[in-house]
Amino acid sequence: MTSQHPADLTDVLASKKDAFQIPEGITYLDGNSLGVLPKHVPARLGQVITEEWGTSLIRAWNTHSWIDLPARTGDRIARLIGAHKGTVVACDSTSVNVFKVLSAALSLRPGRKVILSDNGNFPTDLYVASGLKDLLGRGHELKIVDPETVRDAITDDVAVMMLTEVDYRTGRVHDMAGLTEAAHQAGALAIWDLAHSAGAIPVDLAGAKADFAVGCGYKYLNGGPGAPAFLYVAPEHQDKVTSPLTGWMGHEAPFAFDLDYRPVTGIARMTVGTPAILALSSLHAALDVFEDVDMADIRAKSVSLSELFIAEVESKCPGLELASPRDPAARGSQVSFRFAEGYAVMQALISRGVIGDFRAPDVMRFGFTPLYLSHQDVVDAVDILRDILQTESWNRPEFKTRAKVT
Amino acid sequence: MTSQHPADLTDVLASKKDAFQIPEGITYLDGNSLGVLPKHVPARLGQVITEEWGTSLIRAWNTHSWIDLPARTGDRIARLIGAHKGTVVACDSTSVNVFKVLSAALSLRPGRKVILSDNGNFPTDLYVASGLKDLLGRGHELKIVDPETVRDAITDDVAVMMLTEVDYRTGRVHDMAGLTEAAHQAGALAIWDLAHSAGAIPVDLAGAKADFAVGCGYKYLNGGPGAPAFLYVAPEHQDKVTSPLTGWMGHEAPFAFDLDYRPVTGIARMTVGTPAILALSSLHAALDVFEDVDMADIRAKSVSLSELFIAEVESKCPGLELASPRDPAARGSQVSFRFAEGYAVMQALISRGVIGDFRAPDVMRFGFTPLYLSHQDVVDAVDILRDILQTESWNRPEFKTRAKVT
Repeated sequence: MTSQHPADLTDVLASKKDAFQIPEGITYLDGNSLGVLPKHVPARLGQVITEEWGTSLIRAWNTHSWIDLPARTGDRIARLIGAHKGTVVACDSTSVNVFKVLSAALSLRPGRKVILSDNGNFPTDLYVASGLKDLLGRGHELKIVDPETVRDAITDDVAVMMLTEVDYRTGRVHDMAGLTEAAHQAGALAIWDLAHSAGAIPVDLAGAKADFAVGCGYKYLNGGPGAPAFLYVAPEHQDKVTSPLTGWMGHEAPFAFDLDYRPVTGIARMTVGTPAILALSSLHAALDVFEDVDMADIRAKSVSLSELFIAEVESKCPGLELASPRDPAARGSQVSFRFAEGYAVMQALISRGVIGDFRAPDVMRFGFTPLYLSHQDVVDAVDILRDILQTESWNRPEFKTRAKVT
Repeated sequence: MTSQHPADLTDVLASKKDAFQIPEGITYLDGNSLGVLPKHVPARLGQVITEEWGTSLIRAWNTHSWIDLPARTGDRIARLIGAHKGTVVACDSTSVNVFKVLSAALSLRPGRKVILSDNGNFPTDLYVASGLKDLLGRGHELKIVDPETVRDAITDDVAVMMLTEVDYRTGRVHDMAGLTEAAHQAGALAIWDLAHSAGAIPVDLAGAKADFAVGCGYKYLNGGPGAPAFLYVAPEHQDKVTSPLTGWMGHEAPFAFDLDYRPVTGIARMTVGTPAILALSSLHAALDVFEDVDMADIRAKSVSLSELFIAEVESKCPGLELASPRDPAARGSQVSFRFAEGYAVMQALISRGVIGDFRAPDVMRFGFTPLYLSHQDVVDAVDILRDILQTESWNRPEFKTRAKVT
């Protein structure tokens, strides 16, 4: 394709695409599921493997500051989510981190029994909350409401309101500042899952006075498949809570090998086991790409790409129904369309090099990552989608099959 | 050094040393802390990064079976620890896995309140047990006894006996089969931490009828710094227990995105978040080295190296006191010596290329990894230790300093 969309000519982020290894012939609209490999990461990780691990061996814990890598990586993420230094740490998986911050939050509201969430939350957050509630066996209730009714559900028996800011299916964005304020007014605490926010939209955890947050390293932060997640604890809570997972890395003096646990001061008390140095090094290196980027520029381009995509689909692909909010201010960096045969259409798209994904029962998701997508990519992708919709019959029986893994 | 110890001439594992990247001029006696880099791992990991992640992107979950990597890696470890296929999974950190299996074990003995462990256990196991006990708030007691008195402490109020098979400081080995049988006779369950066992000594989890086990990927298994840990659940317990960390990877149908958690059948229910593909790939590849190795050969050479080391030290280095059991049958694959100025001596050894480590207050640890150490390495290392002890004064004030991180 040799055409160039006019909006690409004035794109201040256009040169960033060169920082990523985009496979030949692929238009990648799935950075909201697994981010693309930044080109410099293989060499950096090679260095960690052959020089730090291979040559320095055990000495690298000191000589290459491996021991601080969770905190150093957390500090880099902090800048992207409006958090102060020393309030974010990169470790474990998002699910494990949800367990930690929810347990910590509940310990600050011992008299209250309701964990409030919504059915737009990513299921693992709800699973973890349910599991923790059952484990504690203290009569907690996990109350799951519709996203639109969260505000009305913040009653004075709510201990913790736990929400994902950007809905993984539709991209709908919650009002973090407003809902956090409402939670605080009712005496509750607020936990935010930033899985589809960090690196995608401007986030201001400190400004919103969020109490706790978690997020994902392998989506918009491009940390690699299954990259370590991150976790935020507001400064005022840090020394009042402990992790329910009391591992040696959260100890005041891990190398004293005391028999009793004494949590260290600060965010490091939320770490557990030995840091995953290879995985953390990939995430830490991937964050280089964000160093000279303003999240406001990312947001502006994200809205521009998403608006263009919706306009193109609605003019060229009749039959698809917008599943995302129409107002860009109410949307993250993805757009979803409903289509009865969405699964099969997505498979056809992927086979033609346009990679999005599918969420049951009928949602086709398209993620827009401003660092490595152009407006022309969007136009070209929709042209292929139009071709597929025009040339195939989507009522044939074989398209009724649904695969479990997308 | 050009001499060759006669025992190396008949060493059936001698050729394995070529499989590892041993830094020039280094004798590495710390594989019990961080294993050496297998030479083929950088290329394999490079392939995972640039081809699987970089080119296949999200499709690699299916096309490269990323989704099964925790189970596939677990199965490779299973062979080394006497476990059946489908009973081991590689995921999370050892600390997090201790939390999971201890919670699971306690759920099988609801009427009993004692968690029995010993003060030779690695502290993080005790911290996690203590944290879980406090979290549950159901009157559990963590009873920590001396290693020699564990058997007598298995009373009929013990719910779970949780031990590390090989003591991280002294190398002392517990009688896994005997203690497990004693626990079962008292109606208790047995959890074994194999951090210093897996890949170091023959382990027979199934034969010993162990109920649960955990272990470390970055020591004798050479999986890389902070590699994923592993976890074992005996077949008869697998469908009776759930993980307290109910993440989406343990769900029966993670990609159905149901709001309710339903644990999948089998060992996968003990997984939590998205698998750490880069870290798991390193561990999975590192295990190649063990494919054609018999653990009995590893054990025979380990004993030979350790016995030689003790004999050499005791003849050349007066003043050092053996801290490990003298009987090789009672020892894992490490030897420790006590010396008042052990920290400073270890720093001097490291500066001369002999890398062991130090554990407060006075223990110098030396690990013997039969895959990449020779008898001549042992003799040469002790010669350097003798030189250091003879040429330095170990009562100077600057040697009194203790560093926190070794």
